[in-house]
Amino acid sequence: MPIPMIDKAFQEYYPEELSHCYGCGRLNAHGLQLKSYWDGEESVALFQPEEKHMAVPGFVYGGLIASLIDCHCTGTAAAAAYREQGRTMDTEPGIRFVTASLHVDYLAPTPLAAQLEVRGIVTQITPKKVVIEATVTANGTICAKGKVVAVHLPESMLKTGENS
Amino acid sequence: MPIPMIDKAFQEYYPEELSHCYGCGRLNAHGLQLKSYWDGEESVALFQPEEKHMAVPGFVYGGLIASLIDCHCTGTAAAAAYREQGRTMDTEPGIRFVTASLHVDYLAPTPLAAQLEVRGIVTQITPKKVVIEATVTANGTICAKGKVVAVHLPESMLKTGENS
Repeated sequence: MPIPMIDKAFQEYYPEELSHCYGCGRLNAHGLQLKSYWDGEESVALFQPEEKHMAVPGFVYGGLIASLIDCHCTGTAAAAAYREQGRTMDTEPGIRFVTASLHVDYLAPTPLAAQLEVRGIVTQITPKKVVIEATVTANGTICAKGKVVAVHLPESMLKTGENS
Repeated sequence: MPIPMIDKAFQEYYPEELSHCYGCGRLNAHGLQLKSYWDGEESVALFQPEEKHMAVPGFVYGGLIASLIDCHCTGTAAAAAYREQGRTMDTEPGIRFVTASLHVDYLAPTPLAAQLEVRGIVTQITPKKVVIEATVTANGTICAKGKVVAVHLPESMLKTGENS
């Protein structure tokens, strides 16, 4: 299935101060820089693991799968919230979600050499939260399924470092 | 509470071919190299996030929390299985677990500057699986709770790269 990546990714609309996430921040030079797009009613992101991301030789470590699902789903939550409000992601006020809960079922070993396709679908959207279900597919096999409950970024997370 | 890290970590008993995991492999130079120990009936690991592990400035990204819980709990599963069999981790045959499912509830933003304490407790152990519940604490606050169902490493994951 062709993936319409001619548009900007969800994460490319995040304001600069929210673009440093290790999983999906375009300004985090050390991070995964995941990029998510709409593909009809689903969202999709492609990711090529690196050799260092192994669990055992040849297979991806579980934490990477969890990270991809997490960031793809919070991005999808933001994009879905804009869509729900009938406006595009370049309009104000900005909307940004964080994860309240994450569940991942690991169904099959995930090969390291394959490009991973992460797909999300919004199963619930309210003013307070967005629920997204996700799959991670490699070489046509669903290797993991995930579910994320995403909530609005709390203001306390914008008080840089106060709690740190 | 003092943590008895005079012993070798669980992960230091893993055979060389199983010590490349990004999350906990002692031979993965790019990885997190998490190290887990018994502390009575609980297992514990300490981890100091780096600046790059941010979600937003000052706070840890969710995928790191998931990774720490994941690797700490599979390590705890292995250690618990040896203990259940009444033998130490340097005896054969080796036991190694992978994650069947991972659940994380994010309870509070996790500060980037604090040392994180990951604690696990085995809530179920059978010949086929080990269930572990975990917490991630920073500065005395529980920032996340997790639950992992760990199962024995499938033989297919030892066929290096065949599926990749």
